[in-house]
Amino acid sequence: MLPDVQTLRPDIPVGLSRVGATGIKKLVKVDRGEGKRPVILISVFDVFVDLSPDRKGVNLSRNFEAIDEVLESLTAKPIRKIEELNLKIVDELLERHDYATKAEVQMGSELILIKKTPATKQRTQEVVKIFCKAVRSRNNQDKKIFVGVEVAGMTACPCAKELIKSRAAEKLRDSFTEEQIDKIFDTIPVAAHNQKGWAKIKIQVTEDFTPSIDDLIEIARNAMSYQLYEILKREDELVVIEEAHKNPRFVEDVVREMAKASVLKFRDAPDDIIVYFRHLSDESIHQHSVIAERTATLGELRNEIL
Amino acid sequence: MLPDVQTLRPDIPVGLSRVGATGIKKLVKVDRGEGKRPVILISVFDVFVDLSPDRKGVNLSRNFEAIDEVLESLTAKPIRKIEELNLKIVDELLERHDYATKAEVQMGSELILIKKTPATKQRTQEVVKIFCKAVRSRNNQDKKIFVGVEVAGMTACPCAKELIKSRAAEKLRDSFTEEQIDKIFDTIPVAAHNQKGWAKIKIQVTEDFTPSIDDLIEIARNAMSYQLYEILKREDELVVIEEAHKNPRFVEDVVREMAKASVLKFRDAPDDIIVYFRHLSDESIHQHSVIAERTATLGELRNEIL
Amino acid sequence: MLPDVQTLRPDIPVGLSRVGATGIKKLVKVDRGEGKRPVILISVFDVFVDLSPDRKGVNLSRNFEAIDEVLESLTAKPIRKIEELNLKIVDELLERHDYATKAEVQMGSELILIKKTPATKQRTQEVVKIFCKAVRSRNNQDKKIFVGVEVAGMTACPCAKELIKSRAAEKLRDSFTEEQIDKIFDTIPVAAHNQKGWAKIKIQVTEDFTPSIDDLIEIARNAMSYQLYEILKREDELVVIEEAHKNPRFVEDVVREMAKASVLKFRDAPDDIIVYFRHLSDESIHQHSVIAERTATLGELRNEIL
Amino acid sequence: MLPDVQTLRPDIPVGLSRVGATGIKKLVKVDRGEGKRPVILISVFDVFVDLSPDRKGVNLSRNFEAIDEVLESLTAKPIRKIEELNLKIVDELLERHDYATKAEVQMGSELILIKKTPATKQRTQEVVKIFCKAVRSRNNQDKKIFVGVEVAGMTACPCAKELIKSRAAEKLRDSFTEEQIDKIFDTIPVAAHNQKGWAKIKIQVTEDFTPSIDDLIEIARNAMSYQLYEILKREDELVVIEEAHKNPRFVEDVVREMAKASVLKFRDAPDDIIVYFRHLSDESIHQHSVIAERTATLGELRNEIL
Repeated sequence: MLPDVQTLRPDIPVGLSRVGATGIKKLVKVDRGEGKRPVILISVFDVFVDLSPDRKGVNLSRNFEAIDEVLESLTAKPIRKIEELNLKIVDELLERHDYATKAEVQMGSELILIKKTPATKQRTQEVVKIFCKAVRSRNNQDKKIFVGVEVAGMTACPCAKELIKSRAAEKLRDSFTEEQIDKIFDTIPVAAHNQKGWAKIKIQVTEDFTPSIDDLIEIARNAMSYQLYEILKREDELVVIEEAHKNPRFVEDVVREMAKASVLKFRDAPDDIIVYFRHLSDESIHQHSVIAERTATLGELRNEIL
Repeated sequence: MLPDVQTLRPDIPVGLSRVGATGIKKLVKVDRGEGKRPVILISVFDVFVDLSPDRKGVNLSRNFEAIDEVLESLTAKPIRKIEELNLKIVDELLERHDYATKAEVQMGSELILIKKTPATKQRTQEVVKIFCKAVRSRNNQDKKIFVGVEVAGMTACPCAKELIKSRAAEKLRDSFTEEQIDKIFDTIPVAAHNQKGWAKIKIQVTEDFTPSIDDLIEIARNAMSYQLYEILKREDELVVIEEAHKNPRFVEDVVREMAKASVLKFRDAPDDIIVYFRHLSDESIHQHSVIAERTATLGELRNEIL
Repeated sequence: MLPDVQTLRPDIPVGLSRVGATGIKKLVKVDRGEGKRPVILISVFDVFVDLSPDRKGVNLSRNFEAIDEVLESLTAKPIRKIEELNLKIVDELLERHDYATKAEVQMGSELILIKKTPATKQRTQEVVKIFCKAVRSRNNQDKKIFVGVEVAGMTACPCAKELIKSRAAEKLRDSFTEEQIDKIFDTIPVAAHNQKGWAKIKIQVTEDFTPSIDDLIEIARNAMSYQLYEILKREDELVVIEEAHKNPRFVEDVVREMAKASVLKFRDAPDDIIVYFRHLSDESIHQHSVIAERTATLGELRNEIL
Repeated sequence: MLPDVQTLRPDIPVGLSRVGATGIKKLVKVDRGEGKRPVILISVFDVFVDLSPDRKGVNLSRNFEAIDEVLESLTAKPIRKIEELNLKIVDELLERHDYATKAEVQMGSELILIKKTPATKQRTQEVVKIFCKAVRSRNNQDKKIFVGVEVAGMTACPCAKELIKSRAAEKLRDSFTEEQIDKIFDTIPVAAHNQKGWAKIKIQVTEDFTPSIDDLIEIARNAMSYQLYEILKREDELVVIEEAHKNPRFVEDVVREMAKASVLKFRDAPDDIIVYFRHLSDESIHQHSVIAERTATLGELRNEIL
């Protein structure tokens, strides 16, 4: 009989908040509903349980068995929502680690979407990050699930645009009337620095409120000055640049746009749903990146916006 | 006169939790006290302020000016502690962003230490990560400073060691007495899987409690099975392996060792000091990594340990 | 009619070795032959063509169209080998960039394999990197294709093992006979530092020589002291550690084992096939990593080994 | 006496191209000449030697001793050029590994430079990567040294600019004369996508030709549409955007600009000096990045350009 060191009492009777494994890669098949092809995701999981002061170690192989058990049960009945998948894993973790009072799982995937370019309607693709986090205590008092997305997009700088317009207007006044100048600026998208950035939303999910990943992607994508495409014919590139410069946005603006769109989209969601928005912009004129963030409940945002 | 777009009212009146810049690299010179050479650090800063719903954007260049101002003032009077440096930056941020109610700075550096190998006393080096985070609200009600370290080290697995001993003892019983077998195991370090890992401590700093970075490094280093060296002559390598296998430790053990050592070292610290411990082990027998964590106050840990 | 700037003459008439796009993610479905399930890969592509001194720019969207064209044609007739896929992309690139004399594609994927643990035969998984590189000039004079794999595994250090044995033998001699000591060392796996590493093979593919990815994975995996598993029950862990310590290997040994196994496996391959072997070991007793490499033709290796 | 396993004959008599250690971090102090402050660099070294088929392993600790020996000798007589430093390390490696016929070292550092913003002359900084690679065979027949830099900068897209101008001109023709339209475009910088990118130069160094790092940085910086600044006041931001849009550049253009500037700057360099240029642009309208490269001798470039 082999010794089982994990079950011994530890020398130092200190409890641990989280013990687990990170970076576990798995293939996950998500059913997208009737008429849609199922999605294959390469997902990375992190799984944790807590540990009491009187047990030396966690049986880590059970974490893998819990994930495998749930993923395999899916071949029979495919999962419709990643939050269901994660909640099942948390349940399975509590089942298998009977000494734990709390379990947690985080899952992240890259989703490859197909879309059309704005002018020539070329089929092209977009890679979007999706993620889920589920925490549950054995007594269910502490149960929280979040889903989220991170979408790459483009922002043009509102400040730069105004600086360029202001300086150009000054010079144009020598030769043109104010009316002509207005016409010129209505016609010509003036230069501004623009760059790639990543808009991120994380939102709480409950039994009664289950926002769709597609809606979250839509909100994140529309919050930036314009979206990205892998293929752009010249006609498309023209549209992308014109439209992005019509909608210049600071990182602050992107977060506020996501907050407003979420309030408008999720009208029926309870007031206490927690949301987190972030935009990170990899500035084209600086070496550093710029970030704006907001954490709030939907109720708080409703008060501010409506 | 150029337009100042940041000062406008935003279209969507939502406040922002944090707006700022990340990844700002600076050279920092830290005075280590009399008789010690000052340390040159390449530090990476992230700086943030909050933003009210009635202002479109933050003046980001002020973040850089705040850091530069503080770093330059140091040539006159060198800094003794990284927490002082970070607190000064936070003060400077609140000074320059008069519309902000809260400011935050995070700083991370790699520190190159010189040490001697255990047997042949070769001079060799160790790279340790140190970091600091300071948050302060304008009214001082919300003021928190943390310093921390992350040290690489080696752990040998206690479970693997016992498995090997148990199986070997079984076989040895055919030819040796129990007494001889005890002698054999006293003499031979038996195999176990062992691997590199990173022990991390983050601890709250107050006006009355300022733990030294050196003590934190010492606590993290000693919590693992053994420390790492860049140069190891054969005599040294022998010591490292023997000693590491005498002190096999799970990730759980490493966190508990740090908790205990902190309680013993910081006897005079207030009960409400917050500490965070983590050990991440890049398992040599698995593709994944394993993590254990504990967040607590020193008071809570004292209750559990003493 | 929109202007086409890429087709202009450049101001500076310098030719370019490679112009292209990197980091293009695509879903690829590879047919594994009768009776085997097709494999879904998330692949990352880099594609390049050369550019003459008299053309300002490359039409980059054609790179994406070339990949998409080839990937979509696969739904009709699934690909059997990643080298076929890459060669088709190169052909398509030369077709679409009529100004180019050379095209190149690189593709990398993570492959998730299922295997059984050594003792308890638990189903577990392994993530392996596979890659392919194809280069072709329009006149076919310069045509080279490589496929490769990178497999994680464990190495125990031969030097450390002998140091421990030597020191222990010295001490055991007080109480045991030489014969007894031999018996002891036959029975007990003694400690050595051991760690995760990555064995990599890249091998040239021709029309006449097409090594299978499965064989390459097998060669890489067996070259290290032992392989890794995500799930290990105690009985399995015991086998892993015992076996790894029976086969201690330096990075140098891992490369030599791969060289030998390739020579033995690919007996019918031409002498001029180019191979590259590398092992990178993330040392458990040092902060740095250690690497060994060999580039040669199979003919050269045959001369050295046979 | 401890066993020395590395010196044994290996089971498989295969020679190795390179064996060594990677990721060795060291503080390096470089003397910049009279009147300039010495520069402190945190440098990362990779060091390799070859290994014959009749020796099992390399003594890796000698790699560290070689670096340390050279770095410490510098306190007496500070180094003026990173190529000198690297060449000394290679010599020291050959000295210490008497079984090696070839040695190689690579070194990379981040250099923090101070510069002034274009309009308001604020002091700000720039982080530039510098690197060096030295290879030498014992018989000196194979001796090559390269130094290089990688500088971040901004590019605006020439194609996008022309697309926007072309479409806008069409619309302006309803209300303005051709002469007025010319005047408008002379005055207003029109929109184009613009982004951060990295221009890289690697150039061979010989006893007779030692280009300065400062010159390489200057060439890389000027090859892009404009340079980056950490601090930009509004007046500065205006200049950056105006100037970048006056100099729109493809990745292809950036490489060609570097080629031309190198030919003009290094007029006295021998024809057979090898140079490598690369520009990587992290496109603001795509998820992927775009790359252009050229490897050539200065002689070849002279033929193409002059």
